[in-house]
Amino acid sequence: MKKIVIQPVLSQPMVPLYFGDNLLEGALLRDLCQELQGQVVIVADHAVNDPYGMVLAQRLHAELFTMPSGEQMKTRQTQEALENALFKMGCGRDTILIALGGGSTTDLVGFVASIYLRGVSLILIPTTLLGMVDASIGGKTAIDTPFGKNLLGTIYHPKAIIADPQLLKTLPKTEWLNGLAEVLKIGLIYDSSIWPLAQQGGGDDTLIFKAIQGKIAIIEQDPVEKGVRRILNFGHTIGHALETMARYAMPHGLAVAIGCVAEAHLSMQLGYLPKEEFEQILGAFAPFSLRLPPHYTRHNLFKTMLYDKKSVAGKVRCVLIDRIGHALPFEGQYCRVITEKEWEPTCAWMEKTCG
Amino acid sequence: MKKIVIQPVLSQPMVPLYFGDNLLEGALLRDLCQELQGQVVIVADHAVNDPYGMVLAQRLHAELFTMPSGEQMKTRQTQEALENALFKMGCGRDTILIALGGGSTTDLVGFVASIYLRGVSLILIPTTLLGMVDASIGGKTAIDTPFGKNLLGTIYHPKAIIADPQLLKTLPKTEWLNGLAEVLKIGLIYDSSIWPLAQQGGGDDTLIFKAIQGKIAIIEQDPVEKGVRRILNFGHTIGHALETMARYAMPHGLAVAIGCVAEAHLSMQLGYLPKEEFEQILGAFAPFSLRLPPHYTRHNLFKTMLYDKKSVAGKVRCVLIDRIGHALPFEGQYCRVITEKEWEPTCAWMEKTCG
Repeated sequence: MKKIVIQPVLSQPMVPLYFGDNLLEGALLRDLCQELQGQVVIVADHAVNDPYGMVLAQRLHAELFTMPSGEQMKTRQTQEALENALFKMGCGRDTILIALGGGSTTDLVGFVASIYLRGVSLILIPTTLLGMVDASIGGKTAIDTPFGKNLLGTIYHPKAIIADPQLLKTLPKTEWLNGLAEVLKIGLIYDSSIWPLAQQGGGDDTLIFKAIQGKIAIIEQDPVEKGVRRILNFGHTIGHALETMARYAMPHGLAVAIGCVAEAHLSMQLGYLPKEEFEQILGAFAPFSLRLPPHYTRHNLFKTMLYDKKSVAGKVRCVLIDRIGHALPFEGQYCRVITEKEWEPTCAWMEKTCG
Repeated sequence: MKKIVIQPVLSQPMVPLYFGDNLLEGALLRDLCQELQGQVVIVADHAVNDPYGMVLAQRLHAELFTMPSGEQMKTRQTQEALENALFKMGCGRDTILIALGGGSTTDLVGFVASIYLRGVSLILIPTTLLGMVDASIGGKTAIDTPFGKNLLGTIYHPKAIIADPQLLKTLPKTEWLNGLAEVLKIGLIYDSSIWPLAQQGGGDDTLIFKAIQGKIAIIEQDPVEKGVRRILNFGHTIGHALETMARYAMPHGLAVAIGCVAEAHLSMQLGYLPKEEFEQILGAFAPFSLRLPPHYTRHNLFKTMLYDKKSVAGKVRCVLIDRIGHALPFEGQYCRVITEKEWEPTCAWMEKTCG
């Protein structure tokens, strides 16, 4: 087992992340709960409840709440159902909420943990690649509303994160690809050593651990998202817009994959990224079937990108790279205004390649 | 105008509190909004919208959202209505929410400010005595659920608090009493010099300012409510339970008034508080008509008190005083487990006195 200690904000307690195989079977979780002292409630999504949720609940003498998995369930309704269940169980401030599931599950349970009685203890056990390398790290919690994704939420740090790559062995291929897009993104913006590993297809554990380390290194440099943390949005200016256009019927990973190749194309087209590196990137995303959503139009894309959280004063900004493993700093902004004219050739290329 | 700078947590920005007459008419609020830069939205409750809300919205070129006042409106439904209105107005991360109203209004608007896009700027303008001396200070935000009061919320500090005692001149007497209970409470647990002022009935501005200073002094000593801040819950173990039983049809101040005399009785009965001081306390609460709510039963009271946030492992805990102006420390816990047997004589006394 490896242990990384994350220091999200200087003044706040550190968050230990435990990484290793079969961690749910050992004494780790029991010891953590004993240390925190309180009533344990496991919230497992349907994808992992049988067997993990049920087995863990028995072992820890914990209450068990199950919820459907997936982005479409990350709603106010699911939130309220969980809160009411906790009230009915008589859960007090000493409650320890354990979120066991994909990124949508850890996002929602994290949000409830942050507001239930103004905050109870939280332990995250991501069970998807996307959850492990992305959603569970950085303290962001959220639910969606009909107006958009992640529009209500808090920054709330768990007491611990347990990342067990063994849990991913039975992950369906589409779900693996969903997370792989974020892993490749970390490789593109920060750590080029991820790149050969991802292409080998083997060495999964090392790959996952490197992606986790990369994300932690970036958020620790910029806990309040005023600078370098923005590079995590590489591939997401286009990616989020595609997801919104598809009304979240498109997997996040596929949207980010298209976003990454398109924004790499943009980086090349604007003269930052060498053509050979772009070709290499395109090759790495070959396992994804890069298809634009049915409702895609260029006009719609421009309109939707304006709602991007990086947009300022009606201008779309985008993260760019100048080589595999390095995002451009742009004087501490880590993103650059892109005019419609500058987007045009990239859109044309994307429509041709992913149409 | 007086200005107190509150330091809620060492690492976080200070919160300025401006205290003085006719502050809404001057340049203060306009200057604050200019400094924060963003789209201003005023959320006013019906009790103050006409004229204050409308006048302010015009002066600041702000959007205006109005909501009913009072605890019964501090619900998930009102929260969702406000959030959806903000989404429809296209409010982004640069939004400045100004809460103008009683304690329920500032509680709810503060909660929405803390979760909307993971947090936007907030300015509090309490317009009731209760809001001014209690709800607006300390960063607690909350909504109620059918399971109890303030059960969902966050700790979220505003950019500024504006306390204008001139706004209270037209306050109905019942609403004044509603806040007076919290003022007297500060006198009981922390600052006995409030006591003679409150009984004179005059010197309102000094009284209000002292109560504000008292609350600030307590929260600054214990920003995360692990110790001395608990004394602010004096009168609230019983008070909150009565409010819940009455389904919030009972004014908070009246519930706290009954709670204060009952918990003073408990303090006496357990041998901490001299009888003469208890009699004096009882006298000070004479202006309140101390009546238990219709649904009161002793069984219900015990059951409801278990949901109190101070409860640990199914045991009710209560703050106690040993003289006017001093709460008992109990080795840093600032509250003590009270068994049902210990509650009995106080319940019997309360049922007789307030029945």
